[in-house]
Amino acid sequence: MLLFRRCHSLTRLGPLNTQRHQVAPAVVSCAVRLCSSSSSSEDHRSHQHVHSVSWKHGLAGLLAGTGAVLAYGLHHHKAERADIGVQTIEKSSSLPVFSQEEVTKHRSLENGIWVTYKGGVYDITEFVAMHPGGDKILLAAGGALEPFWALYAVHNQEHVLEILSEYKVGELSLEDLKKQQAVKSSDPYSSDPERHPVLHINNLKPFNAEPPPEILSDSYITPSAFFFKRNHLPVPQVDPASYQLHVEGLPGGTLTLSLEDLKTRFPKHTITATLQCAGNRRSEMNKVKQVKGLNWGIAAISNATWSGALLRDVLLAAGYKPDVAQWARHVQFEGLDTDVTGTTYGASIPLNKAVSEEGDVLLAYQMNGEDIPPDHGFPVRVVVPGTVGARNVKWLGKIVVSADESSSHWQQNDYKGFSPGTDWDTVDFKSAPAIQELPIQSAITTPADSAEIDRSEETLTVKGYAWSGGGREVVRVDVSLDGGKTWQVAQLRSGDKGQAPEPSPPTGRAWAWKLWEITAPLPPDARELEIVCKAVDNSYNMQPDTVPPIWNLRGVLSNAWHRVTVKIREDESEE
Amino acid sequence: MLLFRRCHSLTRLGPLNTQRHQVAPAVVSCAVRLCSSSSSSEDHRSHQHVHSVSWKHGLAGLLAGTGAVLAYGLHHHKAERADIGVQTIEKSSSLPVFSQEEVTKHRSLENGIWVTYKGGVYDITEFVAMHPGGDKILLAAGGALEPFWALYAVHNQEHVLEILSEYKVGELSLEDLKKQQAVKSSDPYSSDPERHPVLHINNLKPFNAEPPPEILSDSYITPSAFFFKRNHLPVPQVDPASYQLHVEGLPGGTLTLSLEDLKTRFPKHTITATLQCAGNRRSEMNKVKQVKGLNWGIAAISNATWSGALLRDVLLAAGYKPDVAQWARHVQFEGLDTDVTGTTYGASIPLNKAVSEEGDVLLAYQMNGEDIPPDHGFPVRVVVPGTVGARNVKWLGKIVVSADESSSHWQQNDYKGFSPGTDWDTVDFKSAPAIQELPIQSAITTPADSAEIDRSEETLTVKGYAWSGGGREVVRVDVSLDGGKTWQVAQLRSGDKGQAPEPSPPTGRAWAWKLWEITAPLPPDARELEIVCKAVDNSYNMQPDTVPPIWNLRGVLSNAWHRVTVKIREDESEE
Repeated sequence: MLLFRRCHSLTRLGPLNTQRHQVAPAVVSCAVRLCSSSSSSEDHRSHQHVHSVSWKHGLAGLLAGTGAVLAYGLHHHKAERADIGVQTIEKSSSLPVFSQEEVTKHRSLENGIWVTYKGGVYDITEFVAMHPGGDKILLAAGGALEPFWALYAVHNQEHVLEILSEYKVGELSLEDLKKQQAVKSSDPYSSDPERHPVLHINNLKPFNAEPPPEILSDSYITPSAFFFKRNHLPVPQVDPASYQLHVEGLPGGTLTLSLEDLKTRFPKHTITATLQCAGNRRSEMNKVKQVKGLNWGIAAISNATWSGALLRDVLLAAGYKPDVAQWARHVQFEGLDTDVTGTTYGASIPLNKAVSEEGDVLLAYQMNGEDIPPDHGFPVRVVVPGTVGARNVKWLGKIVVSADESSSHWQQNDYKGFSPGTDWDTVDFKSAPAIQELPIQSAITTPADSAEIDRSEETLTVKGYAWSGGGREVVRVDVSLDGGKTWQVAQLRSGDKGQAPEPSPPTGRAWAWKLWEITAPLPPDARELEIVCKAVDNSYNMQPDTVPPIWNLRGVLSNAWHRVTVKIREDESEE
Repeated sequence: MLLFRRCHSLTRLGPLNTQRHQVAPAVVSCAVRLCSSSSSSEDHRSHQHVHSVSWKHGLAGLLAGTGAVLAYGLHHHKAERADIGVQTIEKSSSLPVFSQEEVTKHRSLENGIWVTYKGGVYDITEFVAMHPGGDKILLAAGGALEPFWALYAVHNQEHVLEILSEYKVGELSLEDLKKQQAVKSSDPYSSDPERHPVLHINNLKPFNAEPPPEILSDSYITPSAFFFKRNHLPVPQVDPASYQLHVEGLPGGTLTLSLEDLKTRFPKHTITATLQCAGNRRSEMNKVKQVKGLNWGIAAISNATWSGALLRDVLLAAGYKPDVAQWARHVQFEGLDTDVTGTTYGASIPLNKAVSEEGDVLLAYQMNGEDIPPDHGFPVRVVVPGTVGARNVKWLGKIVVSADESSSHWQQNDYKGFSPGTDWDTVDFKSAPAIQELPIQSAITTPADSAEIDRSEETLTVKGYAWSGGGREVVRVDVSLDGGKTWQVAQLRSGDKGQAPEPSPPTGRAWAWKLWEITAPLPPDARELEIVCKAVDNSYNMQPDTVPPIWNLRGVLSNAWHRVTVKIREDESEE
């Protein structure tokens, strides 16, 4: 299946193939074998892997002069590599040896994209277009994959190594391999904070985890320890005493603020706001057809209070005036979290959201009344209420007012929605807007899917959350116990039971979720119930009924009706 | 069915029944007949209708002294009534006669609600809670229905008369009937403007009509003559020279502006904005289960340019300052169109929409570059872009800044959405917010449902419109030719073909629709295609898949995927 996809893609990459063949011209002609089961069209790439032994023998022979020398050299090379702990994943043991200098020449699609991994040299030119992480892969061009894979531990999976092995073209020279190992970086995640063990971890490095769903509906404000965590990079260690925030792009030049400045020069503003990952409920899309991304359940969403300076106030202090809006359209944010190349996490939001008196965008230094914890952006993060989590940049280092959106990978080539008919072969990331406001959402936190209910309980209580982006207030949640045939209206609340609810927000500023609950009699004859929920916001947007029509290749924006099925266990004493 | 609903409702109206029986105590005890097929519970109301002959005989006999006199009197009465053209709809010819004075005493739920119609007297106390038009029916209490029904011609249907006949309790005295006829009002719609004959009329008085759908996608700007018309009352005749607009509720007192003031004292602002009736596509809900309201097709939506003064500028001129927002929450509008009691059409919008620099709310005096036509609000209407048509008050007479929403029927007891499980027996209009921003919408304007396509055409072109409320821009329309199994992305446009599109709107200010089109090969083996469209806005809100889960008793907010089925006619020359 994987092979089929790759072959299919590669047949469409004519120009890249041509480039590749400049590097290894001996492999141009040949029959297709690897793809023969799925396609009869010519596929040079596949051919090369299968037949690499023969041409590489020839090439090595040419370099070494005699077959005997070649045989000895290969043996010696392998033994010495084993000595220094390299476990190559080569398909063939007779590949040519390249110097790091040679590898480094291959850093462009024109010259080919080569990388090294554990002493192997890989020509991944043709894989670039298929890389789920987009063109970030180019950052590794001409160098070692290890530091990137240490950063993005999602690569540490067998099938990723299998894919890589298909692209192997040689071995790195022993001398260069030793040098590489000498500068091998330490684990960039070693200083990540401790996390609560109740969290369900979707990815360890970078850390991505969600709480058990029932915790969400137990508390209107999610305790920080249980708040879902979605990091793109290692958690940076920031010294609050020397922390600086730079505000750029305004006529007055750069304004630099310390943490103390933020706390003392601007009024402290507090909001209650729900953040949701664009990938929340992605697992439901995965059930329809596999998507790329972390397999989030229904709990990549949480609600907290946030306190800090209004971004609007800071921009005004930095020289923002209404005429800036004549040329500026976006406010970009850069985090202090970086990858091995020094590239920071980045995102942007529309300028009018940033400067609106009703936008409530915060440079937050407190979460739930305490310093923001390291996982959530200590000492300062942006909170853009009503907007997808990805724009709420943590460990904020820089703000840039600009005519342009952030050029970051996450703004341009990720976090966008596409038609279910769009696949990785046809996707054009330029054709869709970056996700900002999120659509109406709700889910059932209890009972859990496949739970068993005792018939003796007579009634069933269903609980969940509901939220909509853009400050649109949730005004109703409908719950069905029969798969969507009939509906009852759930009770909504904006606070914990027994406590006064939060005051009703002004129109367009409903940033926080509502928790909901309904208790209904168990239908007398049912053995199984399909419980469904759907929410409505005050623009009367509704959730779509089913997942397949909103399926998209990145598995974002998964907001179809949420469904759980429970069994009713008959009371044994009555049987 | 109708009967069943009524009976079901009445069994729940104990207190009202009790009141009623004070008027006609003789009918308290009895068995149930009318409802016996649907319910075995006691139903006094139904009983009364069936058995009214007997007790009224008794009552009339008491009044007249002898049966012979009674018989003559009834005969004489009927003959004389026939002379003056009264065609009563009585179920029985032996009802008591009431004076207008007696009828007029019954103007409250406590004393009963009586009305007269064509010489009959009706006790509609118990019907009030079931009236589809809400408690506006109380305006007719103690008086004649005729002037209201002239205003709301929707009542001129046989089943309405049938319902009314069930409530008949007597005849109006001949003397009072003659008086009533002498003051019979003329047709309040006699001065309504001429309309284009191409319009499909859903209701003549008040005038409600929509254009043929294919006209919509033929022109990015809908010509005013074809723009859908949704009047609630007769079109008022307003003299532009003496026109006055009153702005009330601000600290500076009332500001009164002439049309000339509006045109000269404030900058002229032009926007392109789509208006949509809350009931657009109601006919699709009617197919699921009957709803109350005009049976709109898919064309109760149109797009125009509007020019006028910004409401924000006018409010500032009238003394609006930011501190007003500390107590005020709404801006109410009153039209110059009135019903027989002098009640004007009214609605309100949130204050923050009205005063926002990005709200673009207009006091418009031009539509498509010309004076606003009478049907669309001459000389001045409010245009609240992104907001349901009902708040875009026409023939604007008064603006009131207030802590409260408009108290009008249309704000409080109409134009709200409910769960599909909510019916007229359980609905609580206070429980739902007044519709303001509308949700994502799209529809197929061509081909029409049931159209036949020639196989020889090889390709099929599908066209339509897409729009979302709240200034959310439509970013994608997906089209399926197989009922929603597979999807293709349509081409969007913001202008007419061959002309430069309108410039891209700032975030949150996309007030105008997009027209869309897709040309696809006819599937080779299909005999029939189910064409489906669904749109996505830039908050990634999607349309719900199906109608039943969004069905609501008023048939508003009908925005499920739009579906049309076409037949493919095989080319005869090839057969």
